[in-house]
Amino acid sequence: MNAEDMIMISVDDHVVEPPDMFDGHIPDKYRDQAPKVIKLDDGSDVWTFNDAIIPNIGLNAVAGRPKEEYGIEPTAFDEIRPGTYDIHERIKDMNAGGILASMNFPSFPGFSGRQFASAKDKDLALAVLRAYNDWHIDDWAGTYPGRMIPMALPILWDADLCADEVRRVAKKGCHSLTFTENPATLGYPSFHDEYWDPLWTAVCDEQVVVSIHLGSSGQLTMTAPNAPIDVMITLQPMNICQAAADLLWSRVIKKFPGIKFALSEGGTGWIPYFLDRVDRTYDMHHLWTGQDFGGKLPSEVFREHFLTCFISDPVGVSLRNLIGIDNIAWECDYPHSDSSWPTAPEELAAVADGVPDSDLNKITYENAMRWYSFDPFAHRAREQCTVGALRAEAGDHDVSIRSRDKGRFERSNSVEIGKLAGSATA
Amino acid sequence: MNAEDMIMISVDDHVVEPPDMFDGHIPDKYRDQAPKVIKLDDGSDVWTFNDAIIPNIGLNAVAGRPKEEYGIEPTAFDEIRPGTYDIHERIKDMNAGGILASMNFPSFPGFSGRQFASAKDKDLALAVLRAYNDWHIDDWAGTYPGRMIPMALPILWDADLCADEVRRVAKKGCHSLTFTENPATLGYPSFHDEYWDPLWTAVCDEQVVVSIHLGSSGQLTMTAPNAPIDVMITLQPMNICQAAADLLWSRVIKKFPGIKFALSEGGTGWIPYFLDRVDRTYDMHHLWTGQDFGGKLPSEVFREHFLTCFISDPVGVSLRNLIGIDNIAWECDYPHSDSSWPTAPEELAAVADGVPDSDLNKITYENAMRWYSFDPFAHRAREQCTVGALRAEAGDHDVSIRSRDKGRFERSNSVEIGKLAGSATA
Repeated sequence: MNAEDMIMISVDDHVVEPPDMFDGHIPDKYRDQAPKVIKLDDGSDVWTFNDAIIPNIGLNAVAGRPKEEYGIEPTAFDEIRPGTYDIHERIKDMNAGGILASMNFPSFPGFSGRQFASAKDKDLALAVLRAYNDWHIDDWAGTYPGRMIPMALPILWDADLCADEVRRVAKKGCHSLTFTENPATLGYPSFHDEYWDPLWTAVCDEQVVVSIHLGSSGQLTMTAPNAPIDVMITLQPMNICQAAADLLWSRVIKKFPGIKFALSEGGTGWIPYFLDRVDRTYDMHHLWTGQDFGGKLPSEVFREHFLTCFISDPVGVSLRNLIGIDNIAWECDYPHSDSSWPTAPEELAAVADGVPDSDLNKITYENAMRWYSFDPFAHRAREQCTVGALRAEAGDHDVSIRSRDKGRFERSNSVEIGKLAGSATA
Repeated sequence: MNAEDMIMISVDDHVVEPPDMFDGHIPDKYRDQAPKVIKLDDGSDVWTFNDAIIPNIGLNAVAGRPKEEYGIEPTAFDEIRPGTYDIHERIKDMNAGGILASMNFPSFPGFSGRQFASAKDKDLALAVLRAYNDWHIDDWAGTYPGRMIPMALPILWDADLCADEVRRVAKKGCHSLTFTENPATLGYPSFHDEYWDPLWTAVCDEQVVVSIHLGSSGQLTMTAPNAPIDVMITLQPMNICQAAADLLWSRVIKKFPGIKFALSEGGTGWIPYFLDRVDRTYDMHHLWTGQDFGGKLPSEVFREHFLTCFISDPVGVSLRNLIGIDNIAWECDYPHSDSSWPTAPEELAAVADGVPDSDLNKITYENAMRWYSFDPFAHRAREQCTVGALRAEAGDHDVSIRSRDKGRFERSNSVEIGKLAGSATA
């Protein structure tokens, strides 16, 4: 398929929350305590909440920058693309990149909202979290209907409240809940604890996908404090196999047959090996470990419950039928440094050369629509949804590469583990 | 190729050390302090050394047992196959399984000899370790020349002494050093520290492969204390990607162009994705991380330095040319529970259906011979080395499945993390 003819929905991008996001959403009594942006002496903008400074709001938001300047340094709003935090600019960037729709994971709250969960005052935490979800669903996703797959943050500290929140946002049409790879490493009951059952009941009732982003366990894959940062960058996506195995062998899958998980930014090329490994593990060990999927193989069970995705994964594309053609979606990862924006359509078309249109359509948009109960065609004629049509709409929107202030840039090829852990996990 | 016509060298099996192994190898002055086997009240046999009890010597040594009885319970010598600890019986088991040659990782010392390294008296530790290596090379591997690829344990606590030991055992024809996935997690300097340079110099000088077995970091991949054990079993092999990334991006590869690593029991099906990931990481990030392989891609560098292996990996076999046909060896994992003994030839022949003989020969024996400087044909006519010829030699050697004492067997599908960590890591 020509790049221009593709319809592209990205199931993993990121929003950098704008400073005014809580205005009009947080109750008056919590207005003073809500998270706020302040500027530090080094010029960077940071959020403050619950007596903590949350560093690097623009972490990795390098879209449109020369590769020499990628990095994880602190940054300020005026150094990153407005499309990262301004919905109108984001839509222009999406149009220019040929992207019909996008699902946006949070930035400063952490992928599973753990910055909010850390507040001692749980009423405040709840108010902030609900305000966040209202802002995300009503303002960020709601301003341009059919362009954003809405996503809600979870309430980690109370599974019953979390279930209530899932039901509340589902009424607004939100069918994605961002969650952690591993609640146990964040100090909450593990996936193997009945604690979460009210939440799983709610997501099944409301057809909400539990979207698990790499790095959301709060633990980076670090081999040693003095390892080059390339080691960590390499290992992050595949590391999501831990969440996949943890959930696949868990009682959750068995007790909640309708539950759906997405492995966000996890890549796909490793999955055929993983599925063979789980089937072999089952075959060799289930008679003593007691695993029982009612006669099914774990690889079959995986395909019933897990959506995978990739940015550009030639191995995954070639092995798509071993993964499950109905289990693969595409992602752009805008505005992070692994992103293929604004030339994602061309990159994907090259990788998918020879793939039948019916398969490619599933990967680029049909699977995302079905898994996330999302229908952009209700808002926009299908022929206006192609890469070519969107780019025509973008006109001369500027996607050129712009250097940030050279004076503040410092090259570093190894980072202190503490600094990195504070900035890159979420 | 028919199973009977294959020649099979396994680059990953295990020896369960026999109680008399130190006799004749340990200097008289250390005889009383050398590791010893004692029987516990529960009937299990354990090693003692340095005031510690080292549990589960027969861990996972389940070859020839019904799958219902697999597990990690403590065990005794009279409950496991004699082939696990008796070289004459091992050769019979190998013949019956059609296996020409085998490389055996240690059991009770841990894969990198950390049980010896923990001794406060480093002279004692050194004497014990050298005695181990002499036993392994001279007795275990030396009794049947051409049937065992000799392997030495490293001296973790002193890189200079370790280099000396590599040179000493190389004179005996030993070209494999078992090592840890990650010295940092064992409390030693990481792979990124110059501390190890004398060792890397020695292994390059002596053409010794650094063989890194899964689980040798001393850290299991555990998601939560109450996770089913299937999660850990699933994740162990792929987890070796951490060591692969750690070494691939390290200065070691750049400073020691002749160095060779083996990723033992790591599987292969994930490697094409991994190589694509490292190349993408290089492409997207090297301009700011500073990685420089002299114009080569990291995937090319990987193929110069890493040997991979699998037990039975249909994905890896089908993707063999994306991995590197000269970088794949076969393993049996005797006597552990993932092993395909005694029907490994038939299992591999089925998985390799359609693979050209020239490719399959590389996987089953040629790559192992070249990487480990090992030549069984110097000791045995080639036509006597096939699966069929070895099985004819085995005659009616008993490989039937035998149940252990049912009275002591307890099924468990979840294990306390402490118990598991003490028994299953090495």
